[in-house]
Amino acid sequence: MDANTFVLFGATGDLAKRKIYPALFNLFLDGKLPVDFSVIGLGRREWSDETFKANIERSLHSFSRRKASDAEAVNQFLGFFGYHVLNVDRKEDYQSLLQRVAEREQTLGVAPNRLFYLSVGPELFETIAAHIEESGLGETKGWKRLVIEKPFGRDLQSARDFNAQLSKAFTEEEIFRIDHYLGKPMVQKLQLLQQTNPVLQASWNNRYIANVQITASETVGVEERAGYYDHSGALRDMFQNHMLQLLMMLAGHLPKGDDSEQVRYKKKHVMQSLEPLLRQDVATQVVRGQYASGSIQGKPVVGYKDEAGIPQDSHNDTFIAAKLQIEDDFWRGIPFYIRTGKRMKEKATRIVIEFREPVKQLSAANNGGAPNLLVFEISPNEGIYLRLNTEGEAQQQDLTKVLIGSHKSGSDVPEAYENLIYDALRGDSSFFAHWDEVELSWKWVQPILDAYAANEVPLHEYPAGSFGPQAAHELLAKDGFEWWFDQESEAASEATNAGTPLTQEPLSIK
Amino acid sequence: MDANTFVLFGATGDLAKRKIYPALFNLFLDGKLPVDFSVIGLGRREWSDETFKANIERSLHSFSRRKASDAEAVNQFLGFFGYHVLNVDRKEDYQSLLQRVAEREQTLGVAPNRLFYLSVGPELFETIAAHIEESGLGETKGWKRLVIEKPFGRDLQSARDFNAQLSKAFTEEEIFRIDHYLGKPMVQKLQLLQQTNPVLQASWNNRYIANVQITASETVGVEERAGYYDHSGALRDMFQNHMLQLLMMLAGHLPKGDDSEQVRYKKKHVMQSLEPLLRQDVATQVVRGQYASGSIQGKPVVGYKDEAGIPQDSHNDTFIAAKLQIEDDFWRGIPFYIRTGKRMKEKATRIVIEFREPVKQLSAANNGGAPNLLVFEISPNEGIYLRLNTEGEAQQQDLTKVLIGSHKSGSDVPEAYENLIYDALRGDSSFFAHWDEVELSWKWVQPILDAYAANEVPLHEYPAGSFGPQAAHELLAKDGFEWWFDQESEAASEATNAGTPLTQEPLSIK
Repeated sequence: MDANTFVLFGATGDLAKRKIYPALFNLFLDGKLPVDFSVIGLGRREWSDETFKANIERSLHSFSRRKASDAEAVNQFLGFFGYHVLNVDRKEDYQSLLQRVAEREQTLGVAPNRLFYLSVGPELFETIAAHIEESGLGETKGWKRLVIEKPFGRDLQSARDFNAQLSKAFTEEEIFRIDHYLGKPMVQKLQLLQQTNPVLQASWNNRYIANVQITASETVGVEERAGYYDHSGALRDMFQNHMLQLLMMLAGHLPKGDDSEQVRYKKKHVMQSLEPLLRQDVATQVVRGQYASGSIQGKPVVGYKDEAGIPQDSHNDTFIAAKLQIEDDFWRGIPFYIRTGKRMKEKATRIVIEFREPVKQLSAANNGGAPNLLVFEISPNEGIYLRLNTEGEAQQQDLTKVLIGSHKSGSDVPEAYENLIYDALRGDSSFFAHWDEVELSWKWVQPILDAYAANEVPLHEYPAGSFGPQAAHELLAKDGFEWWFDQESEAASEATNAGTPLTQEPLSIK
Repeated sequence: MDANTFVLFGATGDLAKRKIYPALFNLFLDGKLPVDFSVIGLGRREWSDETFKANIERSLHSFSRRKASDAEAVNQFLGFFGYHVLNVDRKEDYQSLLQRVAEREQTLGVAPNRLFYLSVGPELFETIAAHIEESGLGETKGWKRLVIEKPFGRDLQSARDFNAQLSKAFTEEEIFRIDHYLGKPMVQKLQLLQQTNPVLQASWNNRYIANVQITASETVGVEERAGYYDHSGALRDMFQNHMLQLLMMLAGHLPKGDDSEQVRYKKKHVMQSLEPLLRQDVATQVVRGQYASGSIQGKPVVGYKDEAGIPQDSHNDTFIAAKLQIEDDFWRGIPFYIRTGKRMKEKATRIVIEFREPVKQLSAANNGGAPNLLVFEISPNEGIYLRLNTEGEAQQQDLTKVLIGSHKSGSDVPEAYENLIYDALRGDSSFFAHWDEVELSWKWVQPILDAYAANEVPLHEYPAGSFGPQAAHELLAKDGFEWWFDQESEAASEATNAGTPLTQEPLSIK
């Protein structure tokens, strides 16, 4: 990896503290940072380098996946860091920043490779990008990269405007848009599993697959984000980005390795092949939901409209379920059902591939068994399951949940930010959101935004602690399917609580 | 199930004590015996009914899978039993037996359905069958069945002679030949798994399967059976019957349910499709082995020739490995490797289906991963494993052993005898060895018997505690394959000893 300078806007902020410093620290422990690495933290506060470092050290103790117990390692790590006061609107601050960065590059004798990480509100992106360009910070003989986080616009037009502004300072290849779902190890493995296992490959096609279900459910409500969330909703907050990205990662036949150009192309193909949703069809293909009062793990919780900061007449969506179809030769005829919501029964991100049912034997007595399922548990735990019929006729309703690979609990899973920051430092954009995808995603959801705004779609209430409105179940029932694991999740969580071992030890083959 | 009388020859013997009474008891506990059930135990010893019952009760305490702790249940069970003295050569004894059976049938008011279970040496089968016929015991208005155990001959001609004799008293449909491997639950599931799981079905063909390996290895030596074993060897003792039966069960595309006629037909087809082995090819397709001294689980053991009762110049085989090919459209091109032996490293009966390797990516750096494996652990534990590539390139050598279905330890597995006796009582011959199979099996192995007898095949020594002679590895290496799990079994047994949990709790789907 090239030596480089990591220029961090928002260095005193929450994301930096919780995610970025711990991620950099774990990369450091893994030997995945260059020796001549520098981080220049930027913020309005008048911090000294020492205050900054002390804050970073505290963040490691609170949030690092691995303990920051080796004082020497921590000190060496903190040696990368320096703090620089910057008001994002002040030209002179960028000049002094440039001076500082350039001095540091000279001192270390390294090439002027600069990664600008914007851990700040999206309203500042354009200003910062413009100043980077203007100040000469971006006129480097090394490489320059811009790392930003969602939201990338709030509808198709604003996303396009936003991107046009950024493009003045950075080319598409230089922009790394973080969608932290793409950093999750299990998401990154989706294509690997299919490609390296002929046994799965053989049934990975529309002759065998009946449907695909993608769920991301949360148990939390709006929390402290009422102001943002009530103007965003599940559609903008989760569906347009994370959920459609999961769809692309699963359906995209992505190449192995780090051929990020191919990845761009394949993901774009998925979005281009998605059957467009017409505004008049939104009401039949999309279920809009909002949580009412209910209970989460036995604790009563208020409905969305009674949350602090939410108006009593809010029509905002806290749940969405949608049916999508990919019109290409591979996926034709396989419905994709996607749902996400707050205040649901369980916290889980999961992809289920349901296979067609076994052929029934002629004899009526011989039930063919239940459908096979391939399940990717993405978070909070990760694992891959294959559900097979393994019992005789008497027990055929009693199927076995089968584990593939190691089931890892949340704390063992490398942080998405680790993977993503590492990739950005290496310049591998495979697991980032590319502009084409972002634009096509907004294009696909725009009719839903319009239909919601015009209130053409029923807003279904669902009790907090449920699996969403009944209408979401009917969406599948119309096609003869049902959401998997809704009935089971309780049993599963009980089993987990009871300490049922799910871990398999890997065995080495010679 | 019809009421019937279970006429047990050899009622004072070891098999009855260890297997038959416990099996009947467990069937009784499961409500799988008719209410008007009778067992007439036969033996030369002058036992009273009470002595007999006391012996049975002791056998339950020593050998029953489930505890015989419910005194009332045990008493009710013992109520089925009566003892009758019989010298197998004495005509009059069969007459008095008939009288006793008929009286019992009248007392109970049940149909004269009679199952004759010959738990005696094979040298007595013909005599007993003839007397059953002659005495009128077999001239019943109900059904009659004959249950016998191997050996069914010791070569093709003797098997044919033997069968011709039995056929005078019983039709083929009335003869139930026990091969206890066919009673093992996992063996009975082989066809179910393929038929009820489209995901496995998709790759269950010669486009995906590279080879099939069937292993039955023992750690014990000849034990106390030197006299028998030295004239039998692994070929007669294991290969001709158990191993070829496993082959038929796996390759036979057996129907689900209890259509035993179809089962007969399908198994016969496998044997008929087996490429015949010519005598001149035995030396290249078959590996004959005999164990030398070595160590089993750290304990030194003597070689075969030094075992008590074995002559120093014995050429007897304690190990055999063979390559077989099934010449039908389904299995063409897929080699089957079968091996069995004594004094091997581990005690295990196992079928491994090795799938073709994943397609390599163009980039040389991108290894495609290791072959997928579908593994049936038949005994002593049972389980089904699917071995997949689940890790990224860095860890691709570190594959994960994957569990399908519940992994059961030996004690949880229903005894093969339970299943088989229950089937015989019901008249379902699906999981028995049928004459066609027995004859075709002897026919296939006859050239090996001849080549062995003429000493045309090298006798390879292998150290006790190994995986057999090197030649057995070369048999596969010639084709570019290797025996799976030989290197791993040590790690696996260590993992098991360390208490690594392998059990999965089944979860019910709505």
